[in-house]
Amino acid sequence: MEVINSLESEVRSYCRSFPTVFDTARGARLFDQEGRSYVDFFAGAGALNYGHNDPALKRRLLAYIESDGITHGLDMATTAKEDFLACFAERILEPRELQYKTQFPGPTGTNAVEAALKLARKVTGREGVVSFSNAFHGMTLGSLAVTGNGFKRRGAGVPLHFGDAVPFDGFLGEEIDTLDVLEAMLDGGSSGMDPPAAVIVETTQAEGGLNVASDAWLRRLQTLCRRFGSLLIVDDIQVGIGRTGPFFSFERAGLDPDLVCLSKSLSGYGLPMAIVLIRPDLDAWEPGEHNGTFRGNNPAFVTATAALDYWQDDRLEREVGEKAIVLRSALESIARAHPSLKATVKGIGLIQGLSFEDARIAGRVSRLAFERGLLLETAGPDGGVAKVMPPLNIDEVAFKDGLRILSAVVDEVVEDPKQ
Amino acid sequence: MEVINSLESEVRSYCRSFPTVFDTARGARLFDQEGRSYVDFFAGAGALNYGHNDPALKRRLLAYIESDGITHGLDMATTAKEDFLACFAERILEPRELQYKTQFPGPTGTNAVEAALKLARKVTGREGVVSFSNAFHGMTLGSLAVTGNGFKRRGAGVPLHFGDAVPFDGFLGEEIDTLDVLEAMLDGGSSGMDPPAAVIVETTQAEGGLNVASDAWLRRLQTLCRRFGSLLIVDDIQVGIGRTGPFFSFERAGLDPDLVCLSKSLSGYGLPMAIVLIRPDLDAWEPGEHNGTFRGNNPAFVTATAALDYWQDDRLEREVGEKAIVLRSALESIARAHPSLKATVKGIGLIQGLSFEDARIAGRVSRLAFERGLLLETAGPDGGVAKVMPPLNIDEVAFKDGLRILSAVVDEVVEDPKQ
Amino acid sequence: MEVINSLESEVRSYCRSFPTVFDTARGARLFDQEGRSYVDFFAGAGALNYGHNDPALKRRLLAYIESDGITHGLDMATTAKEDFLACFAERILEPRELQYKTQFPGPTGTNAVEAALKLARKVTGREGVVSFSNAFHGMTLGSLAVTGNGFKRRGAGVPLHFGDAVPFDGFLGEEIDTLDVLEAMLDGGSSGMDPPAAVIVETTQAEGGLNVASDAWLRRLQTLCRRFGSLLIVDDIQVGIGRTGPFFSFERAGLDPDLVCLSKSLSGYGLPMAIVLIRPDLDAWEPGEHNGTFRGNNPAFVTATAALDYWQDDRLEREVGEKAIVLRSALESIARAHPSLKATVKGIGLIQGLSFEDARIAGRVSRLAFERGLLLETAGPDGGVAKVMPPLNIDEVAFKDGLRILSAVVDEVVEDPKQ
Amino acid sequence: MEVINSLESEVRSYCRSFPTVFDTARGARLFDQEGRSYVDFFAGAGALNYGHNDPALKRRLLAYIESDGITHGLDMATTAKEDFLACFAERILEPRELQYKTQFPGPTGTNAVEAALKLARKVTGREGVVSFSNAFHGMTLGSLAVTGNGFKRRGAGVPLHFGDAVPFDGFLGEEIDTLDVLEAMLDGGSSGMDPPAAVIVETTQAEGGLNVASDAWLRRLQTLCRRFGSLLIVDDIQVGIGRTGPFFSFERAGLDPDLVCLSKSLSGYGLPMAIVLIRPDLDAWEPGEHNGTFRGNNPAFVTATAALDYWQDDRLEREVGEKAIVLRSALESIARAHPSLKATVKGIGLIQGLSFEDARIAGRVSRLAFERGLLLETAGPDGGVAKVMPPLNIDEVAFKDGLRILSAVVDEVVEDPKQ
Repeated sequence: MEVINSLESEVRSYCRSFPTVFDTARGARLFDQEGRSYVDFFAGAGALNYGHNDPALKRRLLAYIESDGITHGLDMATTAKEDFLACFAERILEPRELQYKTQFPGPTGTNAVEAALKLARKVTGREGVVSFSNAFHGMTLGSLAVTGNGFKRRGAGVPLHFGDAVPFDGFLGEEIDTLDVLEAMLDGGSSGMDPPAAVIVETTQAEGGLNVASDAWLRRLQTLCRRFGSLLIVDDIQVGIGRTGPFFSFERAGLDPDLVCLSKSLSGYGLPMAIVLIRPDLDAWEPGEHNGTFRGNNPAFVTATAALDYWQDDRLEREVGEKAIVLRSALESIARAHPSLKATVKGIGLIQGLSFEDARIAGRVSRLAFERGLLLETAGPDGGVAKVMPPLNIDEVAFKDGLRILSAVVDEVVEDPKQ
Repeated sequence: MEVINSLESEVRSYCRSFPTVFDTARGARLFDQEGRSYVDFFAGAGALNYGHNDPALKRRLLAYIESDGITHGLDMATTAKEDFLACFAERILEPRELQYKTQFPGPTGTNAVEAALKLARKVTGREGVVSFSNAFHGMTLGSLAVTGNGFKRRGAGVPLHFGDAVPFDGFLGEEIDTLDVLEAMLDGGSSGMDPPAAVIVETTQAEGGLNVASDAWLRRLQTLCRRFGSLLIVDDIQVGIGRTGPFFSFERAGLDPDLVCLSKSLSGYGLPMAIVLIRPDLDAWEPGEHNGTFRGNNPAFVTATAALDYWQDDRLEREVGEKAIVLRSALESIARAHPSLKATVKGIGLIQGLSFEDARIAGRVSRLAFERGLLLETAGPDGGVAKVMPPLNIDEVAFKDGLRILSAVVDEVVEDPKQ
Repeated sequence: MEVINSLESEVRSYCRSFPTVFDTARGARLFDQEGRSYVDFFAGAGALNYGHNDPALKRRLLAYIESDGITHGLDMATTAKEDFLACFAERILEPRELQYKTQFPGPTGTNAVEAALKLARKVTGREGVVSFSNAFHGMTLGSLAVTGNGFKRRGAGVPLHFGDAVPFDGFLGEEIDTLDVLEAMLDGGSSGMDPPAAVIVETTQAEGGLNVASDAWLRRLQTLCRRFGSLLIVDDIQVGIGRTGPFFSFERAGLDPDLVCLSKSLSGYGLPMAIVLIRPDLDAWEPGEHNGTFRGNNPAFVTATAALDYWQDDRLEREVGEKAIVLRSALESIARAHPSLKATVKGIGLIQGLSFEDARIAGRVSRLAFERGLLLETAGPDGGVAKVMPPLNIDEVAFKDGLRILSAVVDEVVEDPKQ
Repeated sequence: MEVINSLESEVRSYCRSFPTVFDTARGARLFDQEGRSYVDFFAGAGALNYGHNDPALKRRLLAYIESDGITHGLDMATTAKEDFLACFAERILEPRELQYKTQFPGPTGTNAVEAALKLARKVTGREGVVSFSNAFHGMTLGSLAVTGNGFKRRGAGVPLHFGDAVPFDGFLGEEIDTLDVLEAMLDGGSSGMDPPAAVIVETTQAEGGLNVASDAWLRRLQTLCRRFGSLLIVDDIQVGIGRTGPFFSFERAGLDPDLVCLSKSLSGYGLPMAIVLIRPDLDAWEPGEHNGTFRGNNPAFVTATAALDYWQDDRLEREVGEKAIVLRSALESIARAHPSLKATVKGIGLIQGLSFEDARIAGRVSRLAFERGLLLETAGPDGGVAKVMPPLNIDEVAFKDGLRILSAVVDEVVEDPKQ
């Protein structure tokens, strides 16, 4: 760790929570330089839905590199891109009766969000974008303006303009439908909130603390957007691609978003890749109006295409559903076993967690889990949620190991509050 | 091309200039699906300084993937990151007596620029950033605000704040030292331009039209920055990593920048990677204050480390110097051969080009070159510069082929103005 | 009217609603060039609380001008300013145990608001300011950013930054305490709404449609401000100076605002004057940091001082209370008489009105009232409230005349919907 | 002074430079409570071009008040407004073949500037406004954004957007035509400076240090504006209305501005009043789109109309010309008499002054002049210019008295540098 500690900037973060040097990984297990093994309930913050170095994807990736396939293609046409586009249309869009055009922005989530925001502003001629309390959309200036976290926002060093934050579903308690607030503010034209170019939403807030919007709330949000001429952007970067079960997280609510941002697990192998899905009639870009050097990361296209094999049928979706039940039940057991913690289970699908009344407990659980061989991060504004997010295809052994460690670790934390 | 044309967004751009489907590539040659071969004077817009699929890098990359090395590491410590940091310090920083800390932002140039701007604002407590006419720093909102191109700027859909554009070296003609303007505006505190957090500069503007700042101008700029308490950020994304000869483009002027942005050719293999180099006393980040899912693209760290083998001695730097002379001489010949074009040679090192009085000529040259088997892009505000930017290690045959095609193409354009 | 119509800008407005050339005025009556007389239920939009050309004030004003008292004093010390400051302290501040310092900004309401916003930002080091739905604070860029009306906001021609609009008391219906929304957004630091420098509020929204905040809501607002380190600014420009009864409109709720903006009826005679009252420990201005040519409009200081004679005892406050009852009762009668209009009575003190379900009714009432000799403006986001705002000291005859005309006019409108 | 010092905010400024309580004034003389008399070379910062309490204007003002003329008229049509508009058209606009519509914003300079900026943005659909180094346009947020002074700008407490400052005539020394910089930045669309809605300019910068733009520079500026589709706004608030000789300061250069802001001496009597003159085809305001409580300050209209009697012939303009020569000669004598001060004479017409190499000298001169019975303010970014700005119609005795005191005071300062 010395090299890292002396040469890498103070901004480094996860290497402080998980202080070891990782070396190799496969499926739901990582190994450090000492040969210690870790169960992965973290999944690259959602970028490794198919686990580490999935053998099928790896084979395709190696073959592509061996054959001197184009590596870096900007936005030139390449065989790898053609294959991805055709396969994505066939396996994902067509069965869901979706008709999006695909934009390849820079290969990170925040690049996709920036592109979507730009396009929404161009199409509507408006400037503001409504986002939600506890939202997380990225670290570049445009995305940060629609992100909730105050610590991250202050990092901008400048005031963040053109974002209007409103309460997410549940933010004002059970009794208030928070969209009443948004609707009232948009209605009548005299609230001081100008009608936005777009509303950007995560159907389940991941970093924000595993907050799940209800289907009805999401549908009403879409209706409001249509009524006020604002585009609906679903940021499906962390909870899309099967994390909640179906490929898109918004399928459960039957949404028909105007723009969808995908990244993280899109390449399937953890390689940088991002796309924006655009309703065809909104594809108002001029050629080159938004660009970026690495928008043609072809090895990622190759693994992304290979990963679509997981979506030839509904097997993965069902698997997620079954594991989600196991996970919920395990978390509820833990919560029930320690009533003093006043823990509640949050989340959906394979992004669930325990929210502790005392936020520091989650940090202790994560720290101790690492020591016991389990990677687990915290989420929420105060880091008070211990977040379980394994690879979707985690093998049964690792899944059980991880849940066992988690349960034991919570026991330990309860027994010895100084942990 | 049909798949691309029907499924990809209208924003696609290079696939319109180079309308074929590329399949494989090696060194300075690409091959399309029809088996046609193209000499590459484009080099992935600066991301392929060592050419396509360099065999030595490829070997290391394949071995890493084979061995299930960590692919996606966020900012956890990994063997691949350790190796890169140690090797970068030893091969690059130490010999140049530079003492930077390294930040890994999202793996694209614009992510690096956004991070640098944030840090400069945090450190100085100021908000504005001075940038230059014709500058190009990226497409996300923070970077776009310091980019000159009006077409790209309008793409933002919102006004761009916190950037103050001033004339680059030479922008006001030979007789005015443009830093007189900047100095006068910063002096006295009553100009209406508030003292900036930073000045961001490309030592040679690539997209902006191959404008080379003089050594004296660059040194004076650094002096002004020190005097007014503004950080000097060198964006070495396109012209760093040997493009002008030495590893950093600012070595020729003896600069000591506060922050340096690197990306494009950093991974050496065209894989997404970016870093910000930070003067240690300015490393004021809080852990996690700026983050991003793909900041640990470990396969890129592996090839980046391998690519540093090119910098064990000064061989590559000398090679660039020699080829630059050949290139200059070839371009001057072409210009001289067609006085009617009023073409001038611009640029430095292996980023040189022909600026035509009639900007449309450059577009025609690029189009026709493609048809003749040469990839060549245009640059400059009106696209009036035909830009020659081959891999640094381009083999002699390809180099000559390319120059020959270029010369012939200009002849053709002159002969048949309807081309 | 021809001169006006051909030479004045299209921006002119009230001369369209009241299309005659006014010549003289006294008390609650205006006279046009034809000699027609009008009862004034408009009171200069709140600038004429003591009526037109009040004889006592007029005497003092004439004497001052006669004697060549300083007319234009910038912020030099003058006898007239001394007198005003001493008298204002003695008659207004001391009896209410308030200890404000007084700033003289430019002599208009918006200048006072701009000064207050600047000071709040300077004192707190923060930038955002929370304002309310339907708020009205002025037309210059800083004030407009905290004003709700969309038509006025669009007039800015630029996006309005640094204002965060939230729902005013009652905006979300009876059942939601709108401060629950504000508190939730400020709590926890992850909502995306950054903690504001200040909250600016009208205790009763005048232009916004005669919305009266409850005492409890106002007190809770003050508590929230204290808790989150935000200054409380009361904009008492339209509803202060006796309009609701007591001198300050916030006395009913027992507030202790950090900053108070006064203008409109402050000079008592309709002359331009404005002040900002500043809690002494917040008076962080540097000399001259905010200035303006007409901040020393001494004739206005003279009438302002004379007007304070109205506040030697509680006679005026009681008078307002009594007339308010008469007014409420008259308005309720009208509403009851025409159930089809679904009119409700809104407001407090001598700023009350009828809100019609069909907003166009209010406009018709105002138009017809003018024809019948009564000046009456509309308020509210859609102009749906007929607003009764006579001079506080309106004589009984005029008051009754006005109410009679109003009642008759509503009858007429009901009888002939084409009016 | 005790009342002022204990009750007025720290922001007070001139009462610190001129620490006495002023009581009465007439023509070019003020008198304090002790009966001391002061010659006025300050003229209310340009608001008293006809001196204090001009007898002819006073007569008309008293008669108007006596007769119960409308005092406060919002933007209703009144006899006083009609008279002003008709007289202004006849005496000022028609003889100069100007065809402006007149807008009455709030009655202060900054209100006029804010209105002009809004209208320019509305008409052009653009947002930025170019202003100049050392410009002064007002203290509200929109005007402050186009003001140069860093101290005033920081007072905003927020970043100032939508202003682009460029060098004023002479700011870069004799050899550079500063409009070369502006033209280059606007040309080509890739400088990073977006084409502005308007350029706002003072033909002579008053607060900025008596910088006189040349006729040629002003004409070229107007040409550039036309070429780039930007409106030309002349802020004639301080140097209009005869200060430089002709009614409008831009007459000397033959400009034809799109918008003109007038205030300060417009009412003639020091009463708050401001107008915006609008080229008729640009009068795109919606009714009420910009408003303000005191935009109908009718007593000011009455004195403004009376003051136009000064403009029935060219007598005043010639008088200014003659006095300007006397003033220049006196200032040059002083400068010559004290070569050690390295003083230069700046300005034009009856706004001239001495710029001292050591800026502190100007402050000492002002302070000592006050003690000797002469009011004189300083100007310029560092307050280094002693500014002579008497009423235009100053009587010969006062003029000579003032010049004599000034000369003696400079002698004193030179003799005793500790003054």
